[in-house]
Amino acid sequence: MPREITAYSNPMVKAARNLREKRHRRDQRRFLAEGLRILTEAREAGWLPAELYFASGEQHPLLETLIEETEAAGGIAISTTVDILSKLSGKDNPGSVVGVYDEFSTELAQIDRRNASLWLVAERLRDPGNLGTILRTADATGAGGLILIDECVDPFSVEAVRASMGAIFTVAVARADWATFRDWLRSGPGTLVGLSLDTEHDYRAPTYPDPTFLLTGNEAQGMPDHMAAECDLLVKIPMLGKADSLNAAVATAVMAYTVLGQHRP
Amino acid sequence: MPREITAYSNPMVKAARNLREKRHRRDQRRFLAEGLRILTEAREAGWLPAELYFASGEQHPLLETLIEETEAAGGIAISTTVDILSKLSGKDNPGSVVGVYDEFSTELAQIDRRNASLWLVAERLRDPGNLGTILRTADATGAGGLILIDECVDPFSVEAVRASMGAIFTVAVARADWATFRDWLRSGPGTLVGLSLDTEHDYRAPTYPDPTFLLTGNEAQGMPDHMAAECDLLVKIPMLGKADSLNAAVATAVMAYTVLGQHRP
Repeated sequence: MPREITAYSNPMVKAARNLREKRHRRDQRRFLAEGLRILTEAREAGWLPAELYFASGEQHPLLETLIEETEAAGGIAISTTVDILSKLSGKDNPGSVVGVYDEFSTELAQIDRRNASLWLVAERLRDPGNLGTILRTADATGAGGLILIDECVDPFSVEAVRASMGAIFTVAVARADWATFRDWLRSGPGTLVGLSLDTEHDYRAPTYPDPTFLLTGNEAQGMPDHMAAECDLLVKIPMLGKADSLNAAVATAVMAYTVLGQHRP
Repeated sequence: MPREITAYSNPMVKAARNLREKRHRRDQRRFLAEGLRILTEAREAGWLPAELYFASGEQHPLLETLIEETEAAGGIAISTTVDILSKLSGKDNPGSVVGVYDEFSTELAQIDRRNASLWLVAERLRDPGNLGTILRTADATGAGGLILIDECVDPFSVEAVRASMGAIFTVAVARADWATFRDWLRSGPGTLVGLSLDTEHDYRAPTYPDPTFLLTGNEAQGMPDHMAAECDLLVKIPMLGKADSLNAAVATAVMAYTVLGQHRP
């Protein structure tokens, strides 16, 4: 049976609310996800929340399933007010449901490269929307997941989880510094393909081996020279316009679909 | 010679600050753009601001050029404080420069479809980041511009202009309701290609005529049936994952590069 909590001062609610901030996520090792669609995506991928907040009186078959399975797995279902949901989600019009999830490990060592023929890699990715969008692209293209290099935005931030539309639960996410990633990469099969403006190789020309690791550089600066030098191949997406730049998540997706088109014609 | 304004209560500053809100943009028919890179992009595309705010003491050759050309064109250059720039841009770390631009017309009748072999069309686009990203993709793929159908987010919003990285100044932007667009489209050459999940046509299979109008539906709902019925062709981007969705700007870009690859192999 769900508990009912209507006071914002409740310590469990306060702890959940705090997960909007990075230092609290680090301390609690938990994160927030919101919306029936994303929480259902998570459930179908095998992830249930430690705490499930929902608007009291709300009825939906998918919500019923979530409540049942959350409780069966030892989680706490909490019937609450729209006002508290709004404070948890940070939106005036919150979804009907917010989940508190235990963070999962982002150790690089957990990645099994044999699971997929394409892996996405991003270095110093700054924008949580881009991170979430790239996770969503990884899901859609059947990539194994996203490896985040050096100081990137937190994949468990509310904005990144929201932009991922649930893909944070369906693809692997790893974090590593460059040296660790490079050593790991070279310890097994894998071709490192870097997106660059400083090359004449059109992205459509090469044959992309299995597995391909697709490296996208920082949004503002692209990747440093020493990373480009480590790439087995640098490729360029042509830009005909005046701005000479593509959004990092867009460039990653154009590349990912090109590789996918070769691997599954 | 630039004026110096250091008081936030200055009426010109207040009017500029108000442009962060839609109703004031509508009343003043002006909008904000910020950052030396974007303002330089605008200048190179032939757009100079009516008012140019910059941090006093800031020195940069591109800023000098902006100040000179803005004043030569009858605009006002204003040396001001970092605090005021921060209030104008809404960011704690503002760029060194903010411009107030006269809105340009977004009448569909101004679009000359013969200018490009690809045009992007989006209906009920809700997210300003997606809008800006699609403008950037339009620029990169040599598309003529973006046609916004029915109730879309404001292309002159601060977030959309920022995400466009200057492309708001380099490609055409038009707004129309669906009936007006359809009549205009059918009054000349053009193939309407809709992105859909409800079709078996893989997006890589067709030959895309010149000009192609690429229609992307609302982020959450996709396009309504009556729009899909009007399309000459519906195509699907395969999705292998569990989430079965791509970000709207990403899907548009994957399609736009596919069309570009055919038009310019």
